[in-house]
Amino acid sequence: MATEEIKELPKSWAMVGGDGPQSYSQNSAYQKGVVDASKEKVTEGIKDKLDFKSLGFDSSNDTFRIADFGCSVGPNTFFAVENIIEAVEQKYQAQFQKSPPLELEFQVFFNDVTTNDFNTLFKTLHSNRKYFAAGLPGTFYGRLLPKSTLHFAYSSYCLQWLSKVPKEVVDSKSPAWNKGSIQCDGLKKEVTKAYSAQFQSDMNTFLNARAQEIVGGGLMVIIMAGLPDGIFMSQAGVGMYYELLGSCLVDMAKLGEISEEKVDSFNLPLYYSSSTEIEEIIKENGNFSIEIMDSLSHQIWKTSKKSNIEVSVSGGRAVFQGLVEEHFGSEVVEKTFEHFAKKLVDNFSIFDGAAHEHIDHFILLKRHFN
Amino acid sequence: MATEEIKELPKSWAMVGGDGPQSYSQNSAYQKGVVDASKEKVTEGIKDKLDFKSLGFDSSNDTFRIADFGCSVGPNTFFAVENIIEAVEQKYQAQFQKSPPLELEFQVFFNDVTTNDFNTLFKTLHSNRKYFAAGLPGTFYGRLLPKSTLHFAYSSYCLQWLSKVPKEVVDSKSPAWNKGSIQCDGLKKEVTKAYSAQFQSDMNTFLNARAQEIVGGGLMVIIMAGLPDGIFMSQAGVGMYYELLGSCLVDMAKLGEISEEKVDSFNLPLYYSSSTEIEEIIKENGNFSIEIMDSLSHQIWKTSKKSNIEVSVSGGRAVFQGLVEEHFGSEVVEKTFEHFAKKLVDNFSIFDGAAHEHIDHFILLKRHFN
Repeated sequence: MATEEIKELPKSWAMVGGDGPQSYSQNSAYQKGVVDASKEKVTEGIKDKLDFKSLGFDSSNDTFRIADFGCSVGPNTFFAVENIIEAVEQKYQAQFQKSPPLELEFQVFFNDVTTNDFNTLFKTLHSNRKYFAAGLPGTFYGRLLPKSTLHFAYSSYCLQWLSKVPKEVVDSKSPAWNKGSIQCDGLKKEVTKAYSAQFQSDMNTFLNARAQEIVGGGLMVIIMAGLPDGIFMSQAGVGMYYELLGSCLVDMAKLGEISEEKVDSFNLPLYYSSSTEIEEIIKENGNFSIEIMDSLSHQIWKTSKKSNIEVSVSGGRAVFQGLVEEHFGSEVVEKTFEHFAKKLVDNFSIFDGAAHEHIDHFILLKRHFN
Repeated sequence: MATEEIKELPKSWAMVGGDGPQSYSQNSAYQKGVVDASKEKVTEGIKDKLDFKSLGFDSSNDTFRIADFGCSVGPNTFFAVENIIEAVEQKYQAQFQKSPPLELEFQVFFNDVTTNDFNTLFKTLHSNRKYFAAGLPGTFYGRLLPKSTLHFAYSSYCLQWLSKVPKEVVDSKSPAWNKGSIQCDGLKKEVTKAYSAQFQSDMNTFLNARAQEIVGGGLMVIIMAGLPDGIFMSQAGVGMYYELLGSCLVDMAKLGEISEEKVDSFNLPLYYSSSTEIEEIIKENGNFSIEIMDSLSHQIWKTSKKSNIEVSVSGGRAVFQGLVEEHFGSEVVEKTFEHFAKKLVDNFSIFDGAAHEHIDHFILLKRHFN
C-alpha cells in the first residue's frame, strides 16, 4: 500500500446519518440535482469510452465491478449506480450484438468513511436491485480494494473535501493564517497556496490509490464542486454562503456564546478548484487519460426564494453539522444553525448579486494499460 | 439467481447491536470459545486441503477472497478471519517455497442480515489489518457475491438458525402443532419432521448459493450447533436452557403479563442437527465434497456456577432479545429476562444432571470443479 495513504478521517467528515428531518438522506436535493445533470453525460461516456474487449471481457461468465467513492447514505448513490449499470448493459449489447447474458453480474461497492451511516444505507438498498451490494468502509484517500479489480469508479461531490484543513491556515504564527475567514476565499495568496497544495496532495493520493484498483481500460467519473478559471470563492454565490456561516460564528463569539479562539481556528476542509488546476494534477499524476472534461449545468438555485432558503439551511446543516459539532461542541449546534437560518433570510438578496456561480466539474478518466 | 432464494429475514434475527452491556459484542463468550476451539482445526484444514495451484493462483498479482457468513458485529469474526489469513499465508509459503509476496492481497467480506449493526462492526475493524474489508448485507439464504469469486467461505454458529419457524408448528390445526414448547424438543415426531424439513431446505439453499460463489477447489468451513446422533434436545443441557426460557413465558402468561396465544405461537427458529443428517444433506446436494467432519470440544460451561449463570443470562439475551421483542413487544423484554435470570438461578443444578451436552459440528467442504 502507498505510504502516503491516510488511515482514517475524523468522525465529523460524515454526513448526518439516519433518515430523519435533518439527515443527509432527506437533505441532499442539490446533490441529487448533480446526479440528474450528470446522468446523460455518464451514459454517453460509457457508450463512447468503455471497451469490454480491452477490459478482458469475452461475453461469458464475468463480473463487472463498480465503486462509488464517498456515497454517503443514499438515495443519490442508488440512482447513480443504477444509471451506470443501465449504460454498461447497453454498451454490452451494442458491442457484442446481443443482450447481456445472465452471466454478466454486477458487484457494487459503496464507499464512505467508517463513521458513515452504513446501517441506513443497507436498509434502503432496493430489494429488486440487479447487483450484489457491498459496503466499503474507510477514507478514499487510501487503498480500499485489491489490485486491478475495479472496472468503473465513480465519485460525486466528494473530492472538494480535503483530507484535512491545511495546518498553516489555522496557525496564528503562519503567514498563511486565515483569520476572519472560514474558507479559502481567494483574498490572501498564502492561504490559497496552502489550500491548493493540500488539494494537490489529496488528489494525487486519491488517483494513486484508484490507479492500483482500476484495471487497464477501466473508467472513472469524477464530479466535484469547482470554480471557473480565475474566479475566487469570494466572488461566487457559494463562497458568500460560507462567508455568512463564518459571520454567524463571529457574531456568536461577540455574544460570548463561543470563544474567539475557536472561531479563529475553524476552517472548512473544502477547496473549489479550477478545471486548469485539476487537469494539471491529473496529467502530472500520469495514471489516467482525460477522456472528458466538462462542467454540469443545473437549476437547483433557480426555484422560489422561500424554498431556496429552506434548502440552503437544511442542506448546509446535513453537510456541516458534524464539523461544527466537533469543533465547537454539540451544545451550540442548534443555535448556530438558527443564527445561520436568520442570516440567510436577512441576506438572501446578496446571492442575486453574486458575480459568479461555482461550477460542477464532470471528468471522465480512463486508466492507462500498464 | 436461484428462485428458491430468500429476500430478507426479519429484523429480529439480528444479534443485539452496539457495544453496550447488553450487546452481542460484549456477550459472545460462548461463541468466542467456539472460535478458539476451531482455530487449530481451521489452520490444519487449510494446510491439508487448500491447493493454490488448483485455485488458479500462480504466485503473482492475485486476490484471495474470504467471506464470513453470519459475522454479527465482532470481535469474534476478526479473530476468525485473522486466523484464516495467517493459515493461508503459511500454506502459500509452503506450496510456493517463498514468502507471500505483497501482490497476494486479501479481501474479506463480512456478511450478516441487513439489520445487523454494521456501523459498530466497521468502527471496530483493526486499523492495522492485512486485508481489504467489505460489508455484505443480506441473508445468506440467497446469493450475495458474483459467480466464482470466493476462495474461502466461513460460517460460525449461524446455520442452526433457520430462515423461518416452520409454519405447522405454530398452527393449532396442524398435527405438528408444538403447544407447550418453544423448540424442537424431539418429543413429538411431527414437530421434529417439520423442523427437520425446514433445516434441509435452508441448508440446500445455503449450499446452492455458496456453490455459485465459491471457485472450484475453494474451501468452506461450517461450524454449527448440533446434537450427537440419536439424542433429543430435551435430553441436552441447551434444550433444558430453552425449556426454561419457554417456561418463563408460560409463567408470564399465567400472571397475565403476556397472552397465552402469543406463547403458543412462539417457537425458536433453531434446529440442532446430527452429523448423520448434515452429511446426508451435503451429499445429496452434490456441490461439495466433505473433507473433514468433526466436532469441537470446549470448556465454556465448566467455569464457576455464578459466572456461568451470568454468562447464560446475558449471552441468551444478546441472542434472543430481538425475537422476544418482535413477538411479545418491547415492553415485556426487561421482565422476561428478569424472570429468566431468576429461573436459571433456581434451576441451575438441572444442567449438572443433563444426560448429554450438545455438540458443535466442524465441517470442512471443498467445492467440486465443474
